[in-house]
Amino acid sequence: MTVRIGVLGVGRIGRMHAEIIANEIEGAAVAGVFDVNEAAAAAVADELRVPVMTVEEMLASPDVDAVAVCSSTDTHVELIERAAAAGKAIFCEKPVSLDLAEVDKALAAVEKFQVPFMVGFNRRFDPTHAAVQEAVASGRVGEPHIARLSSRDPAPPPVEYIKVSGGIFVDMMIHDFDMARFVVGSPVTKVYATGAVRIDPAIGEAGDLDTAVVTLTHENGCITVIDNSRQAVYGYDQRMEVLGSTGMAMSENPMKNAAMVYTSTERQGSVLPYFFLDRYTDSYRIEWEAFVRYIRDGGPSPVSGADGRAPVAIGIAAWDSYHSGVPVTVDQG
Amino acid sequence: MTVRIGVLGVGRIGRMHAEIIANEIEGAAVAGVFDVNEAAAAAVADELRVPVMTVEEMLASPDVDAVAVCSSTDTHVELIERAAAAGKAIFCEKPVSLDLAEVDKALAAVEKFQVPFMVGFNRRFDPTHAAVQEAVASGRVGEPHIARLSSRDPAPPPVEYIKVSGGIFVDMMIHDFDMARFVVGSPVTKVYATGAVRIDPAIGEAGDLDTAVVTLTHENGCITVIDNSRQAVYGYDQRMEVLGSTGMAMSENPMKNAAMVYTSTERQGSVLPYFFLDRYTDSYRIEWEAFVRYIRDGGPSPVSGADGRAPVAIGIAAWDSYHSGVPVTVDQG
Amino acid sequence: MTVRIGVLGVGRIGRMHAEIIANEIEGAAVAGVFDVNEAAAAAVADELRVPVMTVEEMLASPDVDAVAVCSSTDTHVELIERAAAAGKAIFCEKPVSLDLAEVDKALAAVEKFQVPFMVGFNRRFDPTHAAVQEAVASGRVGEPHIARLSSRDPAPPPVEYIKVSGGIFVDMMIHDFDMARFVVGSPVTKVYATGAVRIDPAIGEAGDLDTAVVTLTHENGCITVIDNSRQAVYGYDQRMEVLGSTGMAMSENPMKNAAMVYTSTERQGSVLPYFFLDRYTDSYRIEWEAFVRYIRDGGPSPVSGADGRAPVAIGIAAWDSYHSGVPVTVDQG
Amino acid sequence: MTVRIGVLGVGRIGRMHAEIIANEIEGAAVAGVFDVNEAAAAAVADELRVPVMTVEEMLASPDVDAVAVCSSTDTHVELIERAAAAGKAIFCEKPVSLDLAEVDKALAAVEKFQVPFMVGFNRRFDPTHAAVQEAVASGRVGEPHIARLSSRDPAPPPVEYIKVSGGIFVDMMIHDFDMARFVVGSPVTKVYATGAVRIDPAIGEAGDLDTAVVTLTHENGCITVIDNSRQAVYGYDQRMEVLGSTGMAMSENPMKNAAMVYTSTERQGSVLPYFFLDRYTDSYRIEWEAFVRYIRDGGPSPVSGADGRAPVAIGIAAWDSYHSGVPVTVDQG
Repeated sequence: MTVRIGVLGVGRIGRMHAEIIANEIEGAAVAGVFDVNEAAAAAVADELRVPVMTVEEMLASPDVDAVAVCSSTDTHVELIERAAAAGKAIFCEKPVSLDLAEVDKALAAVEKFQVPFMVGFNRRFDPTHAAVQEAVASGRVGEPHIARLSSRDPAPPPVEYIKVSGGIFVDMMIHDFDMARFVVGSPVTKVYATGAVRIDPAIGEAGDLDTAVVTLTHENGCITVIDNSRQAVYGYDQRMEVLGSTGMAMSENPMKNAAMVYTSTERQGSVLPYFFLDRYTDSYRIEWEAFVRYIRDGGPSPVSGADGRAPVAIGIAAWDSYHSGVPVTVDQG
Repeated sequence: MTVRIGVLGVGRIGRMHAEIIANEIEGAAVAGVFDVNEAAAAAVADELRVPVMTVEEMLASPDVDAVAVCSSTDTHVELIERAAAAGKAIFCEKPVSLDLAEVDKALAAVEKFQVPFMVGFNRRFDPTHAAVQEAVASGRVGEPHIARLSSRDPAPPPVEYIKVSGGIFVDMMIHDFDMARFVVGSPVTKVYATGAVRIDPAIGEAGDLDTAVVTLTHENGCITVIDNSRQAVYGYDQRMEVLGSTGMAMSENPMKNAAMVYTSTERQGSVLPYFFLDRYTDSYRIEWEAFVRYIRDGGPSPVSGADGRAPVAIGIAAWDSYHSGVPVTVDQG
Repeated sequence: MTVRIGVLGVGRIGRMHAEIIANEIEGAAVAGVFDVNEAAAAAVADELRVPVMTVEEMLASPDVDAVAVCSSTDTHVELIERAAAAGKAIFCEKPVSLDLAEVDKALAAVEKFQVPFMVGFNRRFDPTHAAVQEAVASGRVGEPHIARLSSRDPAPPPVEYIKVSGGIFVDMMIHDFDMARFVVGSPVTKVYATGAVRIDPAIGEAGDLDTAVVTLTHENGCITVIDNSRQAVYGYDQRMEVLGSTGMAMSENPMKNAAMVYTSTERQGSVLPYFFLDRYTDSYRIEWEAFVRYIRDGGPSPVSGADGRAPVAIGIAAWDSYHSGVPVTVDQG
Repeated sequence: MTVRIGVLGVGRIGRMHAEIIANEIEGAAVAGVFDVNEAAAAAVADELRVPVMTVEEMLASPDVDAVAVCSSTDTHVELIERAAAAGKAIFCEKPVSLDLAEVDKALAAVEKFQVPFMVGFNRRFDPTHAAVQEAVASGRVGEPHIARLSSRDPAPPPVEYIKVSGGIFVDMMIHDFDMARFVVGSPVTKVYATGAVRIDPAIGEAGDLDTAVVTLTHENGCITVIDNSRQAVYGYDQRMEVLGSTGMAMSENPMKNAAMVYTSTERQGSVLPYFFLDRYTDSYRIEWEAFVRYIRDGGPSPVSGADGRAPVAIGIAAWDSYHSGVPVTVDQG
């Protein structure tokens, strides 16, 4: 059986998902694509030799088993509600919504219609980070005491994007909030957030930060520190580590290449992969393999609705903490 | 303009090339596939939605710009001669032939019909090894004095394959002979070869070795040592280095993942990529990009006929050295 | 000219300093030793073939150029005042005192008698950390945006020690507060501290923490996160990094040895150096070389009185923050 | 009981040994020093507060338990014979002699007078290389198939020294011959040697090489390749590895420091330790600890006379191979 997936939204990330499904995932196929930008939809349809569809057609078609919600964030919840009502399995890009009440509406629809639902937190599927999580989950490093996560982009997005993004804690650090929950294996109860505008004043004028440091407290007592920068000129820096009572597990950065040059003054190697498309290539493929297995074999969602909700709640609490200057308790839903 | 490529032979390696051309190379397309195993041809044709063709049809078709010769080694030379006569550009998997006279016949045909010709020494296109070559070619490490190359497979091929392979020096170490010429930037004039059967007596009974160490002397005075093993249980070990008068450039092994676990007794990381399909994924893609650029833009072949001939000559000399126990001069053509 | 140094206090750390001065520092000699534990003083005197002295004798002797204050913390200030009045150059182990008013008394004496004064923050002299500091100070990584420091001990000290130590922020993290100031190159203005008892309840019963995470804000806008653990079972983990506007500089951990073993299931290397005597061997020697140069050639103190005061002030503010649960402003003196 | 050691020869290496014995080795003391250069002897005697002695005095003194033969190579055998006759335990710097017959004379004296005897192959005591040897000896990597050793100096010695050194195979590569025997755990039966003059023509005019590559065959079937260069401008490069049937063990190079700087164009780290005094500091101390244990507790010599002889025999065979151009069988004594 092939899982036939309709892709809703084929901008940069949606197109990437469509190409991966079509070319790399055994047992999955792109059933059709939709985009409000008709030219974009046509281009991807042409490349992958699949039909352009309207949302209505996609949700009505018996030949569509699942939808991938890859459109702009403000459209996610309505599409999830409609797809759930149509009985389709749902993959939703992160974040489900910038608004917790909206997230809850989407999750309620998923619950009501009992459709499979998975959130696209791709980093969980990166082999390096996954190996860290396994080391913790298997008990090899014991009880988690301290976790450290660094996520740094090579360059900031356009300010226009930043204005509608929800800001650094909800747009960017949301991945780290998810990974903190994932690798530590415990919910986050408290947040202290600080940050600064160091890279581009226009980001500050848009009400956002480009540099941020957050301290989390988990239910199991682990303390996690996360730092984000919108501009690490040396590449896409993605590290995490968990210190536990019997050891430590960490993600080092893979490098762009493994050549080294030694001279009389230095030992010199390549920079990091430039950005997420270079660094996380494997994670997207493995994410889709997990989705297909989930649809075929059932079982718990690889990244559930609750997993989609919690990082949004932490991000909102982080903004509260940043603005108030004191630690804030996280809404546990 | 799209370069339309007919793939001759779609066994494991030919199928991989066909999939890469179809899915990953902008400006290239698979025009059709041929295989003596009709079921194999049909399966790939079906997967990529391209026609099955006979060799005659492929060479006669005005819609085929180039052929990829990926069939068994003993068929390469005849196919090259026919494709050259038909005016097709040619990509040929290594080795061109196990017999130098046969190689020369193929190169004569290429010369006579003046068709573009490239040999599939994919390791030249690996970003790590390429960075080493660039460091040497740019003069950063000065005059090459000593080079070291290690190539070790995770597991030996079937003995049936070994019997027709030409043996370790022509089948396996041929890649290292090519890379030695490539990174050192100078022809090889002398070979001393030694080896042993340490892994599987059946390999020895087939007249081959599974463990080999070779010393090369280059025209520019550089001394190169190469070691090969058919079975490094820890994965596909692929390293090279060039010590020069002003520095050293080396390929380290990329790892399967970049996670590390620290405990009270050890620091533990992942193994190497298992084999060439995992390790050299990028190199195959970049190789095809180079071929397409070469067909479109002209210029010298990225891996010329002479580049295809030299490693065969070195491999043959290595067998002579192994059997005679003394160093042997290499046929320079 | 040889700098003749009297060592006040030859417990574990004082004895180490005395041995380094005697055996490894060109241009320095141990003039004599004192300890309230007479047997300890006699043992070191015997080993190094130097006299045991009283404090009075040491301060009165024209053959003593400088004193090394290595006695218990509560005796530092009085010894500094007396040595300054005697016109001796002073090296003082960290911390100068657990009490800021006491620190100020000591610094006032140094100021009044205009004697050379250096605080023993040895990590500044570690070649790895020093290279990070130089990369920042030279402008190579641009304006500092985010710094991260991890210091983790392999095992906690006795609870008896902890009770008089001033607690984790003043006893242990004081090194990181110093290094944060040193590598970032800017004073610390604000502290947010959190922590936990995860390793040994007896540490909690003594009013202390064994796990702590602190966020600092520097005058130049840099945000620094520090984590400390009293028990990282994998060894003495000492890392720091500074992300700046044009790059990033970091200290990796040197390993106990550089051997690696590869098997079919893992790549395995040695653990970290066990503790500070293994990890920071070089730093202590270089520290004494810096002291000797300072005494001989004059110039600013390598680690001044102000450098000794600031980390104490940050540590006290960290305790305030921990107890109040909110960020606290640091006393700038 | 303290082992009292007389040091015969306190040039660069002898002085280093004397300082280590005096300052770092518990249970050992320098009983006195001798050097044909009286000023050199006086300087070391003064520094360490020990007497200058004649050879006769040293060998006659009941207060001397052992001698360290650190004089020029051509004096070793006579000193060993005399010390053995005097009943002293003997530590001898490598090589015992450049002449096998002379080595055999020395070993015969040791045998006749039944004195403890150890050769100063310090690299065996380097923690990194020792961990590789242990991995092999313990069976962790299985049967050794291929070994690779690289030893490269940062700069060549004076040509005057080279003229009396025995040449690269006996002076420099002798360490690698010893380590090949040590880590592979099997005698060397055959040698093929090649080399070149690439660094300094004066070295060639002195009849020596500055660049050399040697292939060894061991009794157990392992093939070992060794490369040496008198000038690796990037520092003292010391690596070895053993590929076995169940894994691989290798020495990576420790670095001068563990700082890394990342910029938009590169990742940059420190160079290697400059030379043996920086790289092998620990090995010399551990070597003396082994000697002292051997003298006190008995048991087999940590590095026996046979261990001292074999590398000389291999070096002589290497010169034969180099001059004849063909592989040569090694004199097994």
